[in-house]
Amino acid sequence: MKKDIEQLMLQNQIEAILVVGPGDHNPYMVYMTGGAHLTSADLVIRKGETPVLFHASMERDEAAKTGLRTVGYNQYPFSNYLKAVNGDRIKAIAIRYQKMLSDLGIESGKVLLYGKIESGFGYAVFSALQSRMPDITLVGHHQPDILLTAMATKDEEEINRIRQMGKVTTGVVAKTAEFLKSQFVSEGVLVGKDDKPITIGQVKKKIDLWLAEGGAENPEGTIFAIGRDAGVPHSSGKADDFLRLGQTIVFDIFPCEVGGGYFYDFTRTWCLGYASDEAQKLYEDVLSVYQQLGSELLINIPFKQYQKRTCELFEAQRHLTVRIKPDTEEGYVHALGHGVGLHIHEQPFSGQTSSENEILAPGSIFTMEPGLYYPERGMGVRLEDTYAACEDGSFEVLAEYPMDLVLPIKNQ
Amino acid sequence: MKKDIEQLMLQNQIEAILVVGPGDHNPYMVYMTGGAHLTSADLVIRKGETPVLFHASMERDEAAKTGLRTVGYNQYPFSNYLKAVNGDRIKAIAIRYQKMLSDLGIESGKVLLYGKIESGFGYAVFSALQSRMPDITLVGHHQPDILLTAMATKDEEEINRIRQMGKVTTGVVAKTAEFLKSQFVSEGVLVGKDDKPITIGQVKKKIDLWLAEGGAENPEGTIFAIGRDAGVPHSSGKADDFLRLGQTIVFDIFPCEVGGGYFYDFTRTWCLGYASDEAQKLYEDVLSVYQQLGSELLINIPFKQYQKRTCELFEAQRHLTVRIKPDTEEGYVHALGHGVGLHIHEQPFSGQTSSENEILAPGSIFTMEPGLYYPERGMGVRLEDTYAACEDGSFEVLAEYPMDLVLPIKNQ
Repeated sequence: MKKDIEQLMLQNQIEAILVVGPGDHNPYMVYMTGGAHLTSADLVIRKGETPVLFHASMERDEAAKTGLRTVGYNQYPFSNYLKAVNGDRIKAIAIRYQKMLSDLGIESGKVLLYGKIESGFGYAVFSALQSRMPDITLVGHHQPDILLTAMATKDEEEINRIRQMGKVTTGVVAKTAEFLKSQFVSEGVLVGKDDKPITIGQVKKKIDLWLAEGGAENPEGTIFAIGRDAGVPHSSGKADDFLRLGQTIVFDIFPCEVGGGYFYDFTRTWCLGYASDEAQKLYEDVLSVYQQLGSELLINIPFKQYQKRTCELFEAQRHLTVRIKPDTEEGYVHALGHGVGLHIHEQPFSGQTSSENEILAPGSIFTMEPGLYYPERGMGVRLEDTYAACEDGSFEVLAEYPMDLVLPIKNQ
Repeated sequence: MKKDIEQLMLQNQIEAILVVGPGDHNPYMVYMTGGAHLTSADLVIRKGETPVLFHASMERDEAAKTGLRTVGYNQYPFSNYLKAVNGDRIKAIAIRYQKMLSDLGIESGKVLLYGKIESGFGYAVFSALQSRMPDITLVGHHQPDILLTAMATKDEEEINRIRQMGKVTTGVVAKTAEFLKSQFVSEGVLVGKDDKPITIGQVKKKIDLWLAEGGAENPEGTIFAIGRDAGVPHSSGKADDFLRLGQTIVFDIFPCEVGGGYFYDFTRTWCLGYASDEAQKLYEDVLSVYQQLGSELLINIPFKQYQKRTCELFEAQRHLTVRIKPDTEEGYVHALGHGVGLHIHEQPFSGQTSSENEILAPGSIFTMEPGLYYPERGMGVRLEDTYAACEDGSFEVLAEYPMDLVLPIKNQ
C-alpha cells in the first residue's frame, strides 16, 4: 500500500524516486497523483518528504487538483539550458532534471526511475543525467521493486474501485450474453433479424459501447475468440468471423477506469446453442480445477505454489502442462494468474520465474484463470475471476457471475 | 512516409532500429505493425531488410496478422538465460536481445531505440545490452529522428484514416451542440427537463459514448472548460462545474482510432445563449487571426514562421504573446500548432525551439490553433482545425465545421 513506500525506501536505502511521463495511462504516475490530465510531468519522492510534482505552467490547474506540492517548469528556464548546450534537447532536459533534483537536496544516493515514456528518449536523457550527476546512481530496475511492492497490496479505497470495475465488467458480460441469446440461427451460425450473420467485430463494438456507458475504458481490447482462435490464449478473435453454434468462445474482458485507472480481469467460455461432448468435457475439466483451487486458497502462500498445484491437477486429468513441456501449445499453456491493479498484470505473479515473496497477502488482488487449449481440435476453455485476499484470511471474488458454458439461443 | 525509412537509415548510417513494447497504444510499434494486440513485442528493422517481429508464442496469431516476418520468443530459451545470470531478469533480457540482434547479423553500428515502455526498465535493459555489445552503439535519441521524420508526412491511406477520425470527431461535436441547445435554462445555468443543472462531467460522459459509437477512443480525455478554466489552455474542466450562460467554453477534442491509432484534433469555443461583448471581441480577434493565417499558408515553409506571424497578428491587436514574454499566462500563451498522426503531437512543430526543417510539406498533417487567454477575466478562446498539406500545394481542412461562438438555447 502507498503508506509502505516510505518504509520500503528507508529499508532499501533509496534516496529518491523519480516518476516521469503523462498523468494518464501511466500506472506509477496515476498511483502517485491519483490521475490528472498532465501531458508530461515529473514526480519526485525524496525519502521521508512530501512528493513534489513538476508540471508545465499551462497545466497548473490540473497539477493543483492532485493535492501534491507542485512546481511549474517555468521555474527552470529551458531556453537558457538549450543555449548552454548548443540546442541539444536531451542535454538541456538533463540539466533541468539536475536542477530539479538539486533543488530538493538530492545530490547523492540511489534514485529509482519509473514512468511510461518513449524508451529511447528515456535512455538518452537518463544516460545524460547520470553523466552530469556522478554522485547519484540512477537505478532503472531495483530489486525489490519499491513501487510495485507497495502496489501489490491495495487499501480499501483501491479495492472498492476495482470492485466497482468488476460490477461494470460483469454487467457488460451479462448484456453481451443477452444480446447473443436473443439472436437467430441460420445454417449453424448466429444471425440477426435480417438473417445476416453476426460478426465478432459487431459484438466487440457493442462491448466497447457498453463499457463506455459504464464509465470504463478498454485500452487493451477484448478477447472474443471462437474455435481454433479460442485454442490460442492471446488470440483476440477475428473481426469478420461468424459465431458458429457449438464452438467454444473464450471471452476475456479487462477494462479499466477512464484515464488509465484500476483494471478488472474476467473470462468466461461460452458455446452458443449447445456444446459438443468434447467441448463439454474440456469445460468440466477446467471448471473442476478452478473450483478445486478456489477451495485450497490460503492467505500468505506464494502464488506460484498454486501454479504448481494447477499443473498437478491438469496432469491428473491427462493434459500436458507447461511444467512438463515449457513451450507446449496444447493443454495448460500459461500461468495461473497475476495481480491486478493499475496494471492489468502486476504482482503477485504465479509463473515459474516469479518470486517466493509474491504471496497472496491481505490486500492482494489477483486473478485465477486456469485454461486448456487444443488449437488443432479447434477449441479452448478458460475461466477467470478477480479475487481479493481479505484481512481475515478469506478470499472474495470481486464480481460474481455464473460459470455456464452453454448460452441457449431463444430463436433457434 | 514509411517508404522513406530505408533511405533515411542509409543516409544516417543507421545499422538497425529496435522498436519495443506493446502492440497497442505504442505509436512506433503501431506504425510498423499496423496495430496488433501484442502484450509486448520487439520489432527490428535492419538496414535494407524486411522488418522482423519477435513475439510471445501465445500471441503468434496476432503477430502473423501484421504480415511481417515473425519469430517467437520460444526460439530463445529464457529460463536458460536466467540461470546463466543467477536469476537477474534484466541481464537475461539483455542476453535475449543480444541473441536476437546477432541472429539478424547486427553486431556493430548504430542501433536506434523506440517504443513506449517503463522508462526504468528500458534504462536498465538497454544499459545492460550496451555493456554486452560494445561494438554496437545504442542511440536513444538520434538527430534527425528517423521514424519521426518518416511519420511527419502521411501517405494516402493514413490521410484517409485521419480524415475519417475527423468525420467522427465533428459528428460528436455536432451531437454535443445539439444536446446543449435542446436543454433548458434556470437562473442563468443550463438545466435538464428535471430542472437539475447539467454538469461538465455529464457532457464529457456523453462525448465518450458518442466517440465509442463512432469507433474512436479518447485516451487523453477531452477539454471542456468554462470561464476561468477556459482561460488556462490545458485545464480540462471540472466535472461538477455547471454551464453558465454567456461564459466562454473551450471544447478541445482529440480522439484516436481504437487501439491507439491515428488521432484527430479539433477545438471550438462556445458561449451558451449569448456572448458578453468582451467574449465576442476576444472571439473575433482569434477568428480573424485564424482566417488570416489560413489565407497565408504556403507549401514547404517552416511551420515556426507561422508561429512568428501569429504573434505579430495578435500583437497588432494589442495582446501579449509568448514572443514578447515567454512565460506569459495572458494573451497568446502557446504555439500555433503541431503535426498529428499516431501521436497527438508530432512533427512538424511550430514552437520557438522547433527546427527549420519542420516544414509544411505535401503529406504533412497539422493543426492550426490560435487562442487568447485571460484567466483573471474568466475567459479564453481557441479555434482549431486539422489540416492536410496537399501534393498540389493547397491545404485542406480535413473535417469542416462551423466556427460559431454562440449556441442558442431553444428553451431559454
